[in-house]
Amino acid sequence: MTRTLTILGATGSIGRSTADVVLAQPEAFRVEAVVGGRDAAALAAMARRLGARFAALADERSGGALREALSGTGIGNGAGSSAVLEAVARDADTVLAAISGTAGLAPTHAALKPGRRLALANKESLVCAGAAFMADARRLGVEIMPVDSEHNALDQALAAGRNADVEKAIITATGGPFRTTPREQIAKASAKEASAHPVWSMGSKINIDSATLMNKGLELIEAHHLFDLEADRLDVLVHPEAIVHGLVQWSDGAVTAGLALPDMKVPIANALRNQGRLQMDLPRLDLAAIGRLSFERPDEERFPCLSLAKAALRAGGAMPTILNAANEIAVEAYMAGRVGFYHISEMVEQVCSSFSGRGLAAPATVAEALAIDEETRQAARQLAAAFTETTRL
Amino acid sequence: MTRTLTILGATGSIGRSTADVVLAQPEAFRVEAVVGGRDAAALAAMARRLGARFAALADERSGGALREALSGTGIGNGAGSSAVLEAVARDADTVLAAISGTAGLAPTHAALKPGRRLALANKESLVCAGAAFMADARRLGVEIMPVDSEHNALDQALAAGRNADVEKAIITATGGPFRTTPREQIAKASAKEASAHPVWSMGSKINIDSATLMNKGLELIEAHHLFDLEADRLDVLVHPEAIVHGLVQWSDGAVTAGLALPDMKVPIANALRNQGRLQMDLPRLDLAAIGRLSFERPDEERFPCLSLAKAALRAGGAMPTILNAANEIAVEAYMAGRVGFYHISEMVEQVCSSFSGRGLAAPATVAEALAIDEETRQAARQLAAAFTETTRL
Repeated sequence: MTRTLTILGATGSIGRSTADVVLAQPEAFRVEAVVGGRDAAALAAMARRLGARFAALADERSGGALREALSGTGIGNGAGSSAVLEAVARDADTVLAAISGTAGLAPTHAALKPGRRLALANKESLVCAGAAFMADARRLGVEIMPVDSEHNALDQALAAGRNADVEKAIITATGGPFRTTPREQIAKASAKEASAHPVWSMGSKINIDSATLMNKGLELIEAHHLFDLEADRLDVLVHPEAIVHGLVQWSDGAVTAGLALPDMKVPIANALRNQGRLQMDLPRLDLAAIGRLSFERPDEERFPCLSLAKAALRAGGAMPTILNAANEIAVEAYMAGRVGFYHISEMVEQVCSSFSGRGLAAPATVAEALAIDEETRQAARQLAAAFTETTRL
Repeated sequence: MTRTLTILGATGSIGRSTADVVLAQPEAFRVEAVVGGRDAAALAAMARRLGARFAALADERSGGALREALSGTGIGNGAGSSAVLEAVARDADTVLAAISGTAGLAPTHAALKPGRRLALANKESLVCAGAAFMADARRLGVEIMPVDSEHNALDQALAAGRNADVEKAIITATGGPFRTTPREQIAKASAKEASAHPVWSMGSKINIDSATLMNKGLELIEAHHLFDLEADRLDVLVHPEAIVHGLVQWSDGAVTAGLALPDMKVPIANALRNQGRLQMDLPRLDLAAIGRLSFERPDEERFPCLSLAKAALRAGGAMPTILNAANEIAVEAYMAGRVGFYHISEMVEQVCSSFSGRGLAAPATVAEALAIDEETRQAARQLAAAFTETTRL
């Protein structure tokens, strides 16, 4: 059976890895549409390479360039949010959603169509609007396959039993660039130092989240929605080699785990599996060659963002939405050199506590989630300005 | 739903651990029968402890002692092979088969009854008579749950996909007491030194098999039958900490694994699961506390028994049956101090090659398997005598 596939975020890192997976399996996929952000040349090249029928750019102003780059190819195209929604609406039994950030939420949500499979790489769909997003997915019978290496590993490890028998689902963290760095030194670290991720090469914001461990906190929130597991059945383990990505501890004392070399093509291929798994020509995990795997508890003292995310997950309601928005603004301020490393967690904590009195319920719709997100960002921006002042004094 | 359970080998190490699991789950099980070997007092105590309805001893001469020990309890009892078969025939939806050695083959095979679950800990059922045993199990609709920690881990790891997508199923070995010992020193090792297993406490014959790695070779043969995987889809990895017990490498590059603290109660509880897993009050695996896991390739130069077992599996036919019987006699001779460590593999190799010209087919029945087993033992005993002479010279 050939699957028809639409790729949202086709020119990004996940999108490019997805193209590699798809091109390695020419009989398994026909690409319906590809969606990119601003880069017309890259999207046009991707559309040709994949033989897509339609290409859409989010940025309306690049529509002309895209049209030109695809002229004579017969590949339909358009630009702006209506073109993106057209791409999402076209017939495809699988949509790989890899537009990053809050901008990806609306198109990813629009991709929920009856009977579809959604290979999900947009974190914000779950972190910002998880309850609403999952309710819609369930109502429409959308099968969600996680693309994140940690959640994809958990998905495989969870195949060994029932949700009721899961005691704990554990995602691993490399520990980031500051895993062994003393707190006083971390406090002074620049955004450039914080961006040096030991294993994965990712976007810069996510690299900072990886240095603060907020990334793992957000992944706990994702896991909560994906697998229907409460905060006290979720945990994080530091594992610098990034080979074991997720583990499930069961009620009988057994543990199952998902492992892979750190290559996003593995979870992407897994999320795109058909009746069976795809046959991928990738290097295989050789544990004897690696020799040893190490594990340690995360240090929530040096990485308070992880505690904050856990607290937001336990608090529930709109708190994960608020945490995520506050963190984005705080990381922006840090990356701009306006505040220090530990101001990220301080700002997130202050924003979360300023909202906590209102006891906001979990947003019931994506629109509601985006409204809370925006309100939080405004509050966080004001706080960031105040922090910047203080830092400068 | 309460399961009715019969335990074969109730007074051995696996049987005692099974009793612990059952007693921790009083609502989950009702014990129908318990079967032991020679120890009337231990079996009577076990039958009382478990509230069994019937107890049978294999050794006919201890029948009187058993009758006396159970007088007034209302627990039916008997001794000798007919009593064992009576125990096996009684209504029980699950039979845990943990009689060790070739002596366990006939009662374990007799336990195959339509619709039953067989929690299998008797290796010889698969190593000596695998094809016949599995064919009968399939024909009768018997669900076989492996109790061995390695196979139980594989069973859980295999839940993440289809047999066709398995590239390799890997069982781990601690490496035994001679993992880091030079060959010249191993050559001079006594059976006592070889029996010092670093992790598991088992019977003495199996400890020697663990030192030669024949144990892992036999487990590959078991895995072949249990999971329908050919020799080239099976492998062994040395992992001294004995935490990861089995791994499955899939066609898409992902790997799933089964882990647990080295406690037989974990795989026993897993093999006895009902609708869901049992809730066991055992210490949980804490990877952060353990800190590191190490892996290395087995050294088939120093541990030729592993190569011999792989070769027997590849050769197929009756060769695994022959290998197993030859190994038992060779280990006996080693344990009696009559031959050296490397004579075990030499004897096994010579016996296997002396039979290989006959191209014996895989035994079609358990009786046929036992006949080949017996013929091999005779040949191996003659060879052992010759080796002993040579060693003494």
